[in-house]
Formats: sequence, C-alpha cells, structure tokens
Amino acid sequence: MKAGIIGTGTVGRTIAAKLARLEYEVMMGTRSVSEKLAVKEKDNYGNPPFSEWYEKNNKVRLGTFSDAASFGDIVFNATNGSSSVTALIMAGTHNIAGKVLVDISNPLDFSNGMPPSLLPGLNNTSSLAEEIQVTFPETKVVKTLNTMWCGLMIDPGMIGDGHHVNFISGNDPGAKESVRKILNQFGWLDENIIDLGDITAARSTEAFVTLWLRVRSVLNTGAFNFSLVK
Amino acid sequence: MKAGIIGTGTVGRTIAAKLARLEYEVMMGTRSVSEKLAVKEKDNYGNPPFSEWYEKNNKVRLGTFSDAASFGDIVFNATNGSSSVTALIMAGTHNIAGKVLVDISNPLDFSNGMPPSLLPGLNNTSSLAEEIQVTFPETKVVKTLNTMWCGLMIDPGMIGDGHHVNFISGNDPGAKESVRKILNQFGWLDENIIDLGDITAARSTEAFVTLWLRVRSVLNTGAFNFSLVK
Repeated sequence: MKAGIIGTGTVGRTIAAKLARLEYEVMMGTRSVSEKLAVKEKDNYGNPPFSEWYEKNNKVRLGTFSDAASFGDIVFNATNGSSSVTALIMAGTHNIAGKVLVDISNPLDFSNGMPPSLLPGLNNTSSLAEEIQVTFPETKVVKTLNTMWCGLMIDPGMIGDGHHVNFISGNDPGAKESVRKILNQFGWLDENIIDLGDITAARSTEAFVTLWLRVRSVLNTGAFNFSLVK
Repeated sequence: MKAGIIGTGTVGRTIAAKLARLEYEVMMGTRSVSEKLAVKEKDNYGNPPFSEWYEKNNKVRLGTFSDAASFGDIVFNATNGSSSVTALIMAGTHNIAGKVLVDISNPLDFSNGMPPSLLPGLNNTSSLAEEIQVTFPETKVVKTLNTMWCGLMIDPGMIGDGHHVNFISGNDPGAKESVRKILNQFGWLDENIIDLGDITAARSTEAFVTLWLRVRSVLNTGAFNFSLVK
C-alpha cells in the first residue's frame, strides 16, 4: 500500500517512518524539494533539518505536495494547521479526490502568544477538518491522532500499556474503518479508539488540544494521554 | 462554614445536598422563591420540580440569589451558563466581593441543536469563567468540576476507584487551595486534581465539555471520566 504524507515536520516524519517500518511505500510531500533539502538549520520548532532525518530514512521518497498526494492510495495531512488548506490545494484536488485523507493537524493560532487559541473561523462552530472536507468534497476526510504527542500516535504502548484514548471522526464509515486498521497497525486497540461520529466532532477534538497543551506545561512532557474511566 | 449555591438545577441540588451532608450550612438561591416552590412540573431538562427535592433536603435553606450570595462564606455558581452573569448580577456584586466563587457552569449554546457549541464571545479567546472574573473583579473565581457529570463531582469513587481527573484554575492561589480542600472532602485526591494555572485555562476546560458530550452520546451514560496516563 502506498501512503502520501503532506508535510515534513515532526508529525509527518514520525508517521512516515512508522509506515515505512510497516512496509508501506511512503512519499512525503513538501513545497519545494530542492529548498527543503538545502535547509541546514533547525526549523522554528527546534527540529533538526529535514535533510538530516531524510538521510537516515532512505526508504521514504520525497516529492512535491502534488507528487505525494498523487502517489498515495491514502494521504496524511501532517502540515501546520494554519497552512493545511493551502498545502492541500497545492497538492491538487484531483490528486486526493476519492481517497481517504487522514487529518492529524490542528488549527492552532500562536499569534496571541502561548498557550495558543484556535484560528478564527476554525473553531467552536467549525473546525479545520470540516473546512478541508468542504473544500475537497470528493475526499474522505478522517480526523484522528490529533489529540496527542506524535511519539504516542505510532507507539501507544509507550505509556500505560497502550490503554489511553484516540478519537476518530469522519463522514464515511468505510474510510474510518480503513484508518482504524492502520491505527491497529500503529498499536491502537479497538477498545481505545472512540468513534465520535461525523466530521463535525473534529470541533471538539481540535479544541481539546488547547487543554492538552495546558496539561503539557504542567507535566513538562508530551508523553501523556488520557484513558476512559467508566 | 456557610455555602451559598446560585442555581437550583441538578448541579446545584447535587452540590447543596453533598455540602449539607458534610455539615456545611447551605442556602440555595433562586430568582423567586415563591415561583420556584409553586412549580409542580419537571423542568426543561427532565428534572423533578425543585419543591419535591427540597422536601427531602430540609437542612438546605432557600432564598433569592442575593440571599444565598450574602449567606455564603463561599459561593457556587451552578446556574445555566447562558444566564450565569445575569444571575450573579442579581446576586449582587457586593455580596460576592472578596469571596471565593466556585464556577461549575458551562457556556453551552443549544440554539443550533445538538450537540451544543459554546456561546458566541465566550469561547476560544475567552470563557465564561473569565467573563465572570472580569465582571466581578473583587471576587476570586475558581473554575472546577465543570468537566463531568454532577454525580461524579461529589462522588468520584463511583468509578475507577476515584482515579480520574478534575481540573482547577483561577487567578488566586489561596482561593484554589481552599477549593481544593472542599474537593478533598468530596472525595478527590490531590493527585487527581490538575491545577492548570490562571482563569484563562477555563477556555480549555469549558471547550472540553463539547467533547465530553460527544463521548457521552457514544457511551449513553454520564458516569464516565478520563484519567491521566503517563
């Protein structure tokens, strides 16, 4: 199976490396391949330059947003939430039409300092995932994994024997089912994957990230999550 | 110790009954005592009429918003979020000045159907708790208990041996400390009370309620919560 990853930050790298280990063929997409590989400094988030990571992960291919979207049978949106819609437009509507798009991004607004709020127009009565679904009606958007640190996304067993929750939402039940199988491969047990229904549920999971970030500052680590108690 | 409870719905009744069992002197406040006691039908939320509950809880006193606010050494806001500020204005700024106000309410907006969103102007870059704090600067607002079903607020041991989380936030450390002691009396262990910092954290815990409501529809019960896994 072929996976296209839109975005080359920490989340994109983490998902790409995991999928490659799972024997997926993986292509990551970036705005400009030559510019991306030319960068030798850490990015704004303190990540090492992509080229450094890429040398060690040579099973992963690199192309433009459009190359990666076209390559993938399934596509992951791992871009910064503030540029997701633009990146996906650059990826090409036709390249993601009919495909499952796993949306992991969050519409965080850092313009008023820390902790961030959510971007105007993409919160409360809307969400980034819904905006993507509306912009690309032929794409099956599935929101998941956006409520935790990326290390846990692909290795839930790192804490609590893997017993903590991951939410999933989307309008297409078949698309959610195929994403659930990938989540199972990542180590998520069905009992810890909570299906919240249609894509409007992303309003709540994206908003949850602001709570997650506040707890993160209290704990001073991202290696935590929440489990359902009932 | 004397507690004033603003609001006579399920949350107010639950908190009042618990505090009375803990030997607090409790007065509940309502808009009009005679009108409240004259109601013989269930309310919009399906709760039995207040008079029925009040007969069985005769240690609790009943007065106006103003009476209850004046009576309490500590005051609880257990009103519907959409009318909290109005109810507290009716309670009287001078009656809550200098006191701790425990804010349990949520600014839910049901005007667009279920599940609710948050009220315009009271979400993302603001919150109900902050609006209350700004409106009553002499009052020490502490946000807590708003992220769960009221049965668990006063009896966390009902599920998971009490090991699930309750968030607390507020600008006054001393006020948070005194509320924490009441939470301990309710059954909350310190290790399960997460102090998120100042009152702006209410933005995140109030938004969390929209996620809680979605999980509630999946589970078909309110008797659940989340525990921290790390």
